[in-house]
Amino acid sequence: VTSFDMIELIERKRDGGALGDAELHWIIAEYTAERIPDYQMAALLMAVFLKGFNERELAAWTDAMLHSGEILSFPDVTARKVDKHSTGGVGDKVSIALAPMVAACGVAVPMISGRGLGHTGGTLDKLESIPGFRVQLGPDEFEDILTDHGMVLAGQSHAIAPADRLIYALRDATGTVPSIPLIASSIMSKKLAEGIDALVLDVKVGSGAFMKHEAAARRLAETMIRIGKSRDTTVVALLTDMNQPLGREVGNANEIAESIEVLRGGGPADLVEVTMALAAEMLLLGGVASDRSEAKAKLRDAIDSGTAAERFRDVVRSHGGDPGVVADPGLLAAPDHVHEVVAPATGYVTRCDALDIGAAGVRLGAGRARKEDPVDPAVGITLLAKYGDQVEEGDPLARVGYNDPDRLERALPLLERAWEIGDEAPQRRPLIIGEVR
Amino acid sequence: VTSFDMIELIERKRDGGALGDAELHWIIAEYTAERIPDYQMAALLMAVFLKGFNERELAAWTDAMLHSGEILSFPDVTARKVDKHSTGGVGDKVSIALAPMVAACGVAVPMISGRGLGHTGGTLDKLESIPGFRVQLGPDEFEDILTDHGMVLAGQSHAIAPADRLIYALRDATGTVPSIPLIASSIMSKKLAEGIDALVLDVKVGSGAFMKHEAAARRLAETMIRIGKSRDTTVVALLTDMNQPLGREVGNANEIAESIEVLRGGGPADLVEVTMALAAEMLLLGGVASDRSEAKAKLRDAIDSGTAAERFRDVVRSHGGDPGVVADPGLLAAPDHVHEVVAPATGYVTRCDALDIGAAGVRLGAGRARKEDPVDPAVGITLLAKYGDQVEEGDPLARVGYNDPDRLERALPLLERAWEIGDEAPQRRPLIIGEVR
Repeated sequence: VTSFDMIELIERKRDGGALGDAELHWIIAEYTAERIPDYQMAALLMAVFLKGFNERELAAWTDAMLHSGEILSFPDVTARKVDKHSTGGVGDKVSIALAPMVAACGVAVPMISGRGLGHTGGTLDKLESIPGFRVQLGPDEFEDILTDHGMVLAGQSHAIAPADRLIYALRDATGTVPSIPLIASSIMSKKLAEGIDALVLDVKVGSGAFMKHEAAARRLAETMIRIGKSRDTTVVALLTDMNQPLGREVGNANEIAESIEVLRGGGPADLVEVTMALAAEMLLLGGVASDRSEAKAKLRDAIDSGTAAERFRDVVRSHGGDPGVVADPGLLAAPDHVHEVVAPATGYVTRCDALDIGAAGVRLGAGRARKEDPVDPAVGITLLAKYGDQVEEGDPLARVGYNDPDRLERALPLLERAWEIGDEAPQRRPLIIGEVR
Repeated sequence: VTSFDMIELIERKRDGGALGDAELHWIIAEYTAERIPDYQMAALLMAVFLKGFNERELAAWTDAMLHSGEILSFPDVTARKVDKHSTGGVGDKVSIALAPMVAACGVAVPMISGRGLGHTGGTLDKLESIPGFRVQLGPDEFEDILTDHGMVLAGQSHAIAPADRLIYALRDATGTVPSIPLIASSIMSKKLAEGIDALVLDVKVGSGAFMKHEAAARRLAETMIRIGKSRDTTVVALLTDMNQPLGREVGNANEIAESIEVLRGGGPADLVEVTMALAAEMLLLGGVASDRSEAKAKLRDAIDSGTAAERFRDVVRSHGGDPGVVADPGLLAAPDHVHEVVAPATGYVTRCDALDIGAAGVRLGAGRARKEDPVDPAVGITLLAKYGDQVEEGDPLARVGYNDPDRLERALPLLERAWEIGDEAPQRRPLIIGEVR
């Protein structure tokens, strides 16, 4: 194996030069084997943050992270395997209804999700609010559930992309997280390790998203699509609004209940619209529909016939969870107390801020400020008035379910500033801002 | 003591923002106390490398490094204390004759020098070629020699600027060495800790120098002058040529012999010119001459009267060295063998490259590739033809003194390419390129 001089590689990237494929693979392999010290990797990551990667470097870096661990393959699953990944938002419970809807239509969904951190929630935390539901599966269990039900909803195994896990932890400690090439390669190395045929990305844009502006969101989407191309994996991205939370529920158990509503044909219009749009792309990529209207008809049929809800119930049972929650969401944890946030004036809601509401959720205990914090599945926020809604002074804007009055106290200032009431109806905003493919 | 969030500080510098004085002092103190990990410091240093420091940040960073250790003061030394610092070159033995010349004129010179690394030589290595000469002095010994002789030539004590030593080692391992603010603050934190009233800088420019071009050398000089101002220490810089070695000797014992020649009124014209120019600035800053011609007259008198050579002899004795070398440089170590490099053609020397000759010296054993390598005091190169000299084919260009034939073998390819012979006399180049004050 050729060996390189790490200092020379750092200097080249620092001066804006490009690193070769063999050099990038060497860096990832040596760092994963703990033969490159953290301080050299930190200097390189800062240089990459400030000088970037070209397309070839990005493909090689991602490829090296992908090959640092196991790459899943499911020879017994004959259906095409398509996953969906969201860059993270508030009230973003899309995966929970989407996976069974898509699986019910004949596309396999080997979905590996994450936990919430900061103001954004995590699918794993939400699923764990179903009594008994286990997200950490062994490789055989993962494959069995996917083979039996055409879907699985699990946490990342330590065998997948260990280099990404190490590098992410170092980025988190060295101020090198918000870099488009580093984010894109981190996400894609994990997703490509799932053994998928295609991927649909939900790139969130707005105050509650990682990307505050459309231009940066579009660049991130384009970057991930290019990485997918380098590995012959089709990637399609929708850019969706995250200036306010998606749906009406922000929390964990309450988000599962709202997802079950969607699976039963109900649920708020914005959540249904985003879920249908992303699921339709998955059906197209999965080869089970030839156009979007056919895809949406199939998805509606899976809901109306009850097959999507039934699929979810079976999957919950396979994960060790109580399948009774699908018929009776009242079995989910509920908060001890409820507090109402009311409109300070009469008018129209001109702001219902995703970042403030997400951060309030963390203070309530529905999310976590640090990785090691526990999550209280029962607490959360139900939004009663969203952007554009007409309210009268004193009308409830939100119901806040809480268990600890001190936590409510800390959450309230954020909730009180999250809404703005104006005299005139604000301009409508598109929910699906654009698509990149 | 206020505490800061290191990640937030890294992010601010990464995004081009400025750090506050208290923040910079906190970083240096916490890093020196090993409470900030190397990987966070490495990320910050790369961000500083790429985004820079403004004038205020640079002053605070230097001040914090300066205060990380002991700051010398010499209440018993009534003369003004002026030091000279060179950014490093090949054949740069200026300090050795300069310090006794200046001290003999009544200005105190508390000189702390370094060792050679890479193609540049180090004053300490040269001094150690004097039998018995000790460069590592205790604080009392340092003060005693300075008080008794008005000069001292020592290595850096570990008590001085420990933060700089730690940060320099990390920069060396993370590709963050060649940054003007980081170089300037590193040099100045050590020099300001010597308790000096003023400093003369010799900023070398050319192939054998750290700064290859005048513009960068000028920026470095300006940066150090600004740092000096922030601590009420006058700094004057001369930019001097380092495209070819200074003087005729490159090595250790042979450079001491050449320095003694200067002290006795001889020595090559270029070495004498640079030594006189720097020494004259020191006399002006030391308040013992009112203009340059008076300064130079005093310096010439110190040489002609023998007081400069006498001063050096006394200092050598105080450092434990054999004072007899001043009268008889034949007492210094000599190489076992000599090889001649000859002119391949008749014409004019159009290149006598400092970098190649310095690197050849390292291969011979006169310098070190790595910090832990030993130095052979006896080996070296004597230049017989320099830039602009007329030579005939077969004339000797250099005499190479060596002890190990394998090392000579490795040095020769560099020496053979170091000279270029052209048909026409090249244009004269100024030795003193400019001054910054």
